[in-house]
Amino acid sequence: MSLTPTPADRFSFGLWTVGWQARDPFGDATRAPLDPVETVHKLAELGAWGVTFHDDDLLAVEPDRDKAVAAFRKALDATGMVVPMATTNLFTHPVFKDGAFTSNDRDIRRYALRKVMRNLDLAAELGASTYVFWGGREGAETDAAKDVRVALDRFREGIDYLAGYVKDRGYQIRFALEPKPNEPRGDILLPTIGHALGFISTLEHHEMVGLNPEVGHEQMAGMNFVHGIAQALWQGKLFHIDLNGQHGPKYDQDLVFGHGDVKSAFFLVDLLEHGGYEGPRHFDYKPTRTEDAADVWVSAAANMRTYLLLKERAKAFRADPDVQEAIRASRIDELAVPTVAPGESYESLRSEEFDLDAAAARGYHYTRLDQLAIEHLMGAR
Amino acid sequence: MSLTPTPADRFSFGLWTVGWQARDPFGDATRAPLDPVETVHKLAELGAWGVTFHDDDLLAVEPDRDKAVAAFRKALDATGMVVPMATTNLFTHPVFKDGAFTSNDRDIRRYALRKVMRNLDLAAELGASTYVFWGGREGAETDAAKDVRVALDRFREGIDYLAGYVKDRGYQIRFALEPKPNEPRGDILLPTIGHALGFISTLEHHEMVGLNPEVGHEQMAGMNFVHGIAQALWQGKLFHIDLNGQHGPKYDQDLVFGHGDVKSAFFLVDLLEHGGYEGPRHFDYKPTRTEDAADVWVSAAANMRTYLLLKERAKAFRADPDVQEAIRASRIDELAVPTVAPGESYESLRSEEFDLDAAAARGYHYTRLDQLAIEHLMGAR
Amino acid sequence: MSLTPTPADRFSFGLWTVGWQARDPFGDATRAPLDPVETVHKLAELGAWGVTFHDDDLLAVEPDRDKAVAAFRKALDATGMVVPMATTNLFTHPVFKDGAFTSNDRDIRRYALRKVMRNLDLAAELGASTYVFWGGREGAETDAAKDVRVALDRFREGIDYLAGYVKDRGYQIRFALEPKPNEPRGDILLPTIGHALGFISTLEHHEMVGLNPEVGHEQMAGMNFVHGIAQALWQGKLFHIDLNGQHGPKYDQDLVFGHGDVKSAFFLVDLLEHGGYEGPRHFDYKPTRTEDAADVWVSAAANMRTYLLLKERAKAFRADPDVQEAIRASRIDELAVPTVAPGESYESLRSEEFDLDAAAARGYHYTRLDQLAIEHLMGAR
Amino acid sequence: MSLTPTPADRFSFGLWTVGWQARDPFGDATRAPLDPVETVHKLAELGAWGVTFHDDDLLAVEPDRDKAVAAFRKALDATGMVVPMATTNLFTHPVFKDGAFTSNDRDIRRYALRKVMRNLDLAAELGASTYVFWGGREGAETDAAKDVRVALDRFREGIDYLAGYVKDRGYQIRFALEPKPNEPRGDILLPTIGHALGFISTLEHHEMVGLNPEVGHEQMAGMNFVHGIAQALWQGKLFHIDLNGQHGPKYDQDLVFGHGDVKSAFFLVDLLEHGGYEGPRHFDYKPTRTEDAADVWVSAAANMRTYLLLKERAKAFRADPDVQEAIRASRIDELAVPTVAPGESYESLRSEEFDLDAAAARGYHYTRLDQLAIEHLMGAR
Repeated sequence: MSLTPTPADRFSFGLWTVGWQARDPFGDATRAPLDPVETVHKLAELGAWGVTFHDDDLLAVEPDRDKAVAAFRKALDATGMVVPMATTNLFTHPVFKDGAFTSNDRDIRRYALRKVMRNLDLAAELGASTYVFWGGREGAETDAAKDVRVALDRFREGIDYLAGYVKDRGYQIRFALEPKPNEPRGDILLPTIGHALGFISTLEHHEMVGLNPEVGHEQMAGMNFVHGIAQALWQGKLFHIDLNGQHGPKYDQDLVFGHGDVKSAFFLVDLLEHGGYEGPRHFDYKPTRTEDAADVWVSAAANMRTYLLLKERAKAFRADPDVQEAIRASRIDELAVPTVAPGESYESLRSEEFDLDAAAARGYHYTRLDQLAIEHLMGAR
Repeated sequence: MSLTPTPADRFSFGLWTVGWQARDPFGDATRAPLDPVETVHKLAELGAWGVTFHDDDLLAVEPDRDKAVAAFRKALDATGMVVPMATTNLFTHPVFKDGAFTSNDRDIRRYALRKVMRNLDLAAELGASTYVFWGGREGAETDAAKDVRVALDRFREGIDYLAGYVKDRGYQIRFALEPKPNEPRGDILLPTIGHALGFISTLEHHEMVGLNPEVGHEQMAGMNFVHGIAQALWQGKLFHIDLNGQHGPKYDQDLVFGHGDVKSAFFLVDLLEHGGYEGPRHFDYKPTRTEDAADVWVSAAANMRTYLLLKERAKAFRADPDVQEAIRASRIDELAVPTVAPGESYESLRSEEFDLDAAAARGYHYTRLDQLAIEHLMGAR
Repeated sequence: MSLTPTPADRFSFGLWTVGWQARDPFGDATRAPLDPVETVHKLAELGAWGVTFHDDDLLAVEPDRDKAVAAFRKALDATGMVVPMATTNLFTHPVFKDGAFTSNDRDIRRYALRKVMRNLDLAAELGASTYVFWGGREGAETDAAKDVRVALDRFREGIDYLAGYVKDRGYQIRFALEPKPNEPRGDILLPTIGHALGFISTLEHHEMVGLNPEVGHEQMAGMNFVHGIAQALWQGKLFHIDLNGQHGPKYDQDLVFGHGDVKSAFFLVDLLEHGGYEGPRHFDYKPTRTEDAADVWVSAAANMRTYLLLKERAKAFRADPDVQEAIRASRIDELAVPTVAPGESYESLRSEEFDLDAAAARGYHYTRLDQLAIEHLMGAR
Repeated sequence: MSLTPTPADRFSFGLWTVGWQARDPFGDATRAPLDPVETVHKLAELGAWGVTFHDDDLLAVEPDRDKAVAAFRKALDATGMVVPMATTNLFTHPVFKDGAFTSNDRDIRRYALRKVMRNLDLAAELGASTYVFWGGREGAETDAAKDVRVALDRFREGIDYLAGYVKDRGYQIRFALEPKPNEPRGDILLPTIGHALGFISTLEHHEMVGLNPEVGHEQMAGMNFVHGIAQALWQGKLFHIDLNGQHGPKYDQDLVFGHGDVKSAFFLVDLLEHGGYEGPRHFDYKPTRTEDAADVWVSAAANMRTYLLLKERAKAFRADPDVQEAIRASRIDELAVPTVAPGESYESLRSEEFDLDAAAARGYHYTRLDQLAIEHLMGAR
């Protein structure tokens, strides 16, 4: 297996990732803006397959929108890079300080819809099949500020309205909601994968709305990301994914993929590669603020290389006969057997003989399996 | 408004709450077992309305099940206490060490179903209208141990099977799932309100399955409990609630209600009292391990008194003309107005004039409102 | 007791608090810069006693340092406001992206020392008696980046060097270190009150170095702030304090004091007022980003009013005979009695009779006391 | 380098680790008690060098203390296993429910001292050179329960008294305090490495008191364990260490070493092996509750094997010329150069020329170094 990324790996990056100027809550920018055209060429050289963007990202160095789009499109054509996903910036401008779809100010909510519609048109033109909604400003700092039930009404109205628009226009686009628990708001609506799955089930156009979960966002709430992705897959809702790194509950770090909890990253790659996910492997990270313009590309490459390494390790893990034997010893296969037989009566189930003590005494041998995973992760088998 | 609890307040307690013997991971029991009969009488004296139980709780001092049930029933009759909810202990016995509905061991999964069915029969007899499922052992310590997608298949099978049983038997019982992120497992399936809402949407009998969220469980994940309850209400799924206290992400503390984050408790009571929730106010707390047998009842009373105090404060908050004016100033009412007018065309929306800078400059005055809330909480207005 | 702040309350604010323009990691400024002169006048009107500043804060609207200082001084004279504390901005400029005293770049470390010395001269001129060091950029995102032992050598060198400078100049200034666990760095050196106390014990000039703990910073690590302050007082190291609000482990919220964990704030004010702390009550908060220029002053006033309310509640708590009786019942006084009598022999201690079971059975009745605290906090007694 | 443990590796285990019966707050024991004699033999077979114990651990199966000690000693002699450390159980018995050295009950405090003294005598007999104090019950659930300053007076009294005892008896024993933030108490005194370092600086016998930090305990507070260990080493206070695994802020998991945050474990082993620590590598973990009696030894072996693997990886990391070059490129060596030259004048420092913009522009290239670390951890170079 090669550790050199190719388009077949379907790696993609947001313009805003490598283009982050490293302005943080306590510090000014440490890097100059990046021209999207340069970004497309650089990412293509590194082996990436796709590039994604917020509407405003295209204007990083060229303020004229038409010129910016034309230049971007030209770079795509020249490199063969695709645009698998696009999204809207509904958070940077002060107008969104109380939210976009859930701002108390109706005029602002309407402006937000317009801003999305305009970029949906562009996304469709550029061939994007997924459109992401990160509601980073939909939230509050005090429970006095929002009736969350009413806010969810407006959130649902917004998503359903835009889904209707996409259908009316005939765009081949699906929506992916991106949950986050907090930051920049004290509490954000739809804080986890779960809350977003619950919300989606209430939508009129629920079949075209899924998720774009981000590693760090779930880990900021102490959630097991692999479990969350598994539930999203199980519900048929893993439409897209944001890969990066995080060290537990604290501010959003957006580290290189694998540079946070690398054991979780190992099991994640295993699940993505063997669990039927066929979407992009999208990196939504930020090059650390200490790094210079050249380091940015080192970090971009590190994301892809770490993914490929983990993929290699996960493949070897699955292929190892000792692992296969350990899985059997842990009776993991037995979980796939339905608990109740087809047509079985209540009485049959209720009258069954059962040796409680014997069942309680049996061990599950998970530590052996976990140690095998660690050793495969470490390349020690 | 009175601070003395009466049955009209619909306060209920689990037998296992006041009856907790204070065994913790590092220490032995500090209190003797409590006779359920005594508990019913004591709670009734304190003004509680209902009592709830796990199947095994009834056997705390009387090992014969029939005798235990008869004595319990007699105490209910003597006091007028009701049984609004019941549940199954699927976690204490070693047999459940790898889970109940999602244990790798099929025989154990079947045993779990039988255990629930048996207690569902009793719950129906005693008039319980809600049956809680806390899947505390459904989870794992390593991602190698479970294919979460398969585990969710089994979880769904178990809940749907039991829901079918309830329907077949004609019981007037609804199910309420109780999420928890971790402890006693490293990661528990359905870790938050959101994940459970997502799961429920996949059930065959989804209409009879809702939630029993617990204050501390959500706060262990840093979640805003008021937001979570609001989403559950919004989805029509707040079937029951577990009130207690917690100090953020750490082990499950089960403090007296209001003894953790009291500001959140204020907004929670406000939401429950004014948001249409009509179920029991159920306390699922543990008297601290330092407390003796008499202190247990002091702590039970503290839960109810704090709730009533918060209810009084929330009522005064809503009635205060300054608060009403502040709510208007924050344009909270405006959030209830649909963003798009009925029948409005895309063109109408997209061509609307909008003064971006003026909209961005407007303040929301939430701090004033938050300060009014704090002053009401503190009885200072 | 009055709820109107006066200079006798010793309330102070940083220029950077009310002056925060509300730029966050995902959003642009929502408010215009504030003239320090206006700030001094406004704070004085609201009843504040003091104002504090970073060197760069003075230049918010007037780029000429001499003019800025002269205007600031004139405002102080006109209002009677004092400058109890000053500090250095060693974090905003990109030059500090790898730290100030612990940057790998020696030239930058030297520049940091110069920047502090220059502002120490001004602080002395303006009569500040405390100089704060928040080492927000002293840290790392990966353990590969720093040998923390070497970094602590440099940190110690820096603090000792500047302490020597203060002594040589004869300034009447003490240093106060401000711990923080993370943000803006992945991990910050001296992450908690404890780590800073440990570090101080190694300093040459340890007697002139203490702490400036901040509510939210400790709570970001899940630490009990009241416990931390108690240890700092116990070690004679509480030189200054930063009051604000936070909702547990997440990004640094800098809410209004009391708007986070208000129960902890109650016990904190009780400790400060009755524990011998005589320094300023300094608010280091940020007016929420949703608020406009007028709201800023509403939030400033809210800090002081909440403090005074809590002070009133704490005084009533201490004066309540029921509370006094409950304290005795919990045997809290008994903790002040030395465990071993003066001159007692080992044999005397070891041969003592002791009824283990009786001692184990005694309860501590803490819930009663906690409930009394909650009721006093809520103004319900 | 061999992956088979030998006594030269100085691996040690507590009797209570492999002997844990897997009773947790929601479940009964899943494993039978282990005879300490069997434990000594089993650990010796696996390649361990030492065994440690709480006084009560010796009585797991033989209630007669003299017989239990004699049998244990015989097992040590037979196997060549040493006892590098011992400690006291001051937490399991209900008598300690409000603490041991800081219980409000003076009689209990005196009992705690006696219990420690008795086991110190045994520890000295068995040749232990370190005596650990984990104050797991020294704490509170409400700030109303303890005046922490007074509690610290008693804590100090207790430690100093016992240190005096050790000196008077002429034992060659040093004390090691083990911090923990919470669980089983809501908040524990001396919650982190830092707080304990601060406390130690106030002791009469401070030179004989250091630390026994535990991986999981610091990570429960979101602390960077490697940073904490570095500060402890820097202050000459790393007397002992407890190795295990944890997944961030939640209940105390006590996973196998390396099975939590394996990247942090990599940097920890690097620091221990190359930072001058010469004490035992002590595993304080718990075999997961799902595991049976045989699995216990699989997990014990996993701790040692993972440590040795990480040691091998850390050695290769340090030896790699690319890593050495990257360290130089990041100017990590430059941090060891004092910031101010010996005898340099203030004027010399203050008048130095400095190109601020050029210094700000230089990158630190940490991502490249971090990626090299990840690749070495994964055995990919």
